[in-house]
Amino acid sequence: MAVYTDVSDEEMEDFVALYAIGEVVSFKGIAEGVSNSNFLLQTDTGTYILTLYEERRTNPADLPFFLDLMEHLAARGLACPTPLHARDGAVIGQLCGKPAALVSFLQGLSPRRITPDHCAALGEAMARMHVAGADFPRTRPNDLSQDGWHALFKATKGRADKVAPGLADKIKSALAELKKTWPSDLPRGLIHADLFPDNVFFRGDKATGTERVSGIIDFYFACTDFLAYDVAICLNAWCFEADGAFNATKARQMLAGYRRVRDLSPAELAALPVLAQGAALRFLLTRLFDWLDTPPGAFVKRKDPLEYLRKLRFHQQVGGPGGYGIL
Amino acid sequence: MAVYTDVSDEEMEDFVALYAIGEVVSFKGIAEGVSNSNFLLQTDTGTYILTLYEERRTNPADLPFFLDLMEHLAARGLACPTPLHARDGAVIGQLCGKPAALVSFLQGLSPRRITPDHCAALGEAMARMHVAGADFPRTRPNDLSQDGWHALFKATKGRADKVAPGLADKIKSALAELKKTWPSDLPRGLIHADLFPDNVFFRGDKATGTERVSGIIDFYFACTDFLAYDVAICLNAWCFEADGAFNATKARQMLAGYRRVRDLSPAELAALPVLAQGAALRFLLTRLFDWLDTPPGAFVKRKDPLEYLRKLRFHQQVGGPGGYGIL
Repeated sequence: MAVYTDVSDEEMEDFVALYAIGEVVSFKGIAEGVSNSNFLLQTDTGTYILTLYEERRTNPADLPFFLDLMEHLAARGLACPTPLHARDGAVIGQLCGKPAALVSFLQGLSPRRITPDHCAALGEAMARMHVAGADFPRTRPNDLSQDGWHALFKATKGRADKVAPGLADKIKSALAELKKTWPSDLPRGLIHADLFPDNVFFRGDKATGTERVSGIIDFYFACTDFLAYDVAICLNAWCFEADGAFNATKARQMLAGYRRVRDLSPAELAALPVLAQGAALRFLLTRLFDWLDTPPGAFVKRKDPLEYLRKLRFHQQVGGPGGYGIL
Repeated sequence: MAVYTDVSDEEMEDFVALYAIGEVVSFKGIAEGVSNSNFLLQTDTGTYILTLYEERRTNPADLPFFLDLMEHLAARGLACPTPLHARDGAVIGQLCGKPAALVSFLQGLSPRRITPDHCAALGEAMARMHVAGADFPRTRPNDLSQDGWHALFKATKGRADKVAPGLADKIKSALAELKKTWPSDLPRGLIHADLFPDNVFFRGDKATGTERVSGIIDFYFACTDFLAYDVAICLNAWCFEADGAFNATKARQMLAGYRRVRDLSPAELAALPVLAQGAALRFLLTRLFDWLDTPPGAFVKRKDPLEYLRKLRFHQQVGGPGGYGIL
C-alpha cells in the first residue's frame, strides 16, 4: 500500500511519450503492491499500470526475469500483466531515475471473503501458470527458501522474544527440523511464491454463478522452486479462517482445482505438510523482520507474525495429505 | 495521500449496487486527498471516484454543504466532481460504517512545474467558480479564519519554538496585527479555500499550445468568506518558486485571468497584502500543528511550516497591489 516516489506530470508525459499509447489523460498513485510505487494511468488508448521499482525492495538485476516472465505467461494466455514495449523495443525504462515498466491493466477484484469457489478457481489458475511456465527459459533461485530463512532468523533472533516469549526457540527448532525433512527431488519450475488473495483478481460469472480468475499480479517474488511449494503457500494464504481454523473444504477445492489441470504426484502430495511448514516459516520470518523494522506509529499496517506461528504449528501436526482434505 | 479504510470487494459491490452505474469492474485505493479515503472505481459504465469520509478529518454535518456545492457548480458548467445520486436519490451513503459519496471522474493532471499560463487559466477558473457560486443558497463559516488561527496558535504555541526559535512570538505579533488590519466589508461568497495545484487539473490544448483547467477538486474546505481571500490563498500557493522567490509574472497572469471573468474592486485589490498575510498564517498554523502532531518516522510527508513563515514575511513587506504585479 504505497507510493514511494512522487512523479510529476511532465515526467509522466515524457515517459509515456516513449510508448505508442497516446497521450496521458490522468494518472493516480494507487495503494497496491507493497514493494514498489504503482500508478493507474489513463491515456487516449486505454488504462495501464505503471510500476516504478524501488531499489530497496526489488533488485534491478532481477527485473528482466520478472518482466520476461510476465510476457511469457501472458503470451500463453495466462491473465497476468503484459509488459508494454516502448517504441525502441525496451520493456524497462527510467522514470525519476528509477527503473520503471508499463504493463497492461487487469480487471477484477481481490476477494476479501474467500469462498471454496475462489479456492477452486485459484487452484486451476495456479496450475495453468505452472504449465505455462514450463518452457520459460530463465531461472531464478528462491532467496526466501532455507538460506534466506536462516539469514532472516539471524537478523531477528535477538529481538524475536519481544514479540512473543520463546519465539526464537520455536523458530530455531522449526528451522532445524525443516533442514532434515525438506524434500530434494520434487518437480521444479516457475513459481509465483507470493500468491496471496491480494495478488489474484476474480470476476463473477453471473450466468453460471461461479468465480473465475481474471488476473494474477505481482510477480516480484517469482522464482524457480518446487511447484508444490506454490501450492503449500496457497494452503497457508487461502485456507485458514480469520479465527485461525483450517478450512479443509477450501483446501480440498484448491487441490482439486489444481489437479484438474496438472496432477500432483504421490511424492508431491506426501511432501505437502513439510512444504506448508516451510511456507508458514517463510512468512513468519518476513513478517517478524518487518514487525521489528517498522516503528509502531508508522502509517503502514504491520502484519502479525504470530498468525504464521499458529499456521506453522497446524502444519507440524498434519500427518499427511489427508490433513488437507485429500481423500 | 492516503487510504485510511480498507473496503472489501463485497462491501464495494453492495454499495455500487445502490446506484444505476453497472457492475464493479475494478477499484483501487488512490493516493489523492489528504483528508479522506479515495478509490478510483471502474464499472461497466465508466470511471468514478468514491470518497469515504473519515470523521477525524471531515465533519459529517458539513457533507451536505460540500456535496450540494459540487452539484451546484457542476450544474453551472464548472469542471468539478458531480455527486451521483443513488436510486433512492441520496448523494451520501454509508460504506464500512462511514459516510461515502460517489462523484464523477475528471481527466487531467495536476501541474508540478507551474507556468504563468497555468496561473492565468487558474485565475479564470477561480473567478468562474466564484460567479457560479453566487446563487448557491447555503453558507458555511470559514473555521480557518481569525478564530481558527487563534485556536491553532493556542494548541501549538508551547511547542512552536522547537520548530524555529522565536516562531511563537512571530505568530503572536502577526495575529495581533491581522486582528487590526483584517478587512470587514469586501464582497463575500463561496470560496474553495484550498486551491493548491494538487487540487486543480489541467489539460494542454495542442492546437493553441495553451493550458486549460479541466477540473477543480477537493471542496472539503469550501466556505463563505471574502472572494478575494481565495485569490490571496492562490497568491501563496501558486506564485512562489521553490527557492522562496515571489514570481510577479505568475501573480500578474493569475490576477489578469481572474479579472477577465470577475473584476476585483479597488478595495479588494488594496486588501490583497493583508489577505495574503492571513492566508500565509493559516497554512503556517495548520502545517505547524500537523508537524508537531506527526511522528518523524511516520510514512507521511510532513510539509514545512516555515515555508509559510517566509511567505508571511514577504506579504508583510508588500506595500500594495503593485507588489503582486498589478500595474
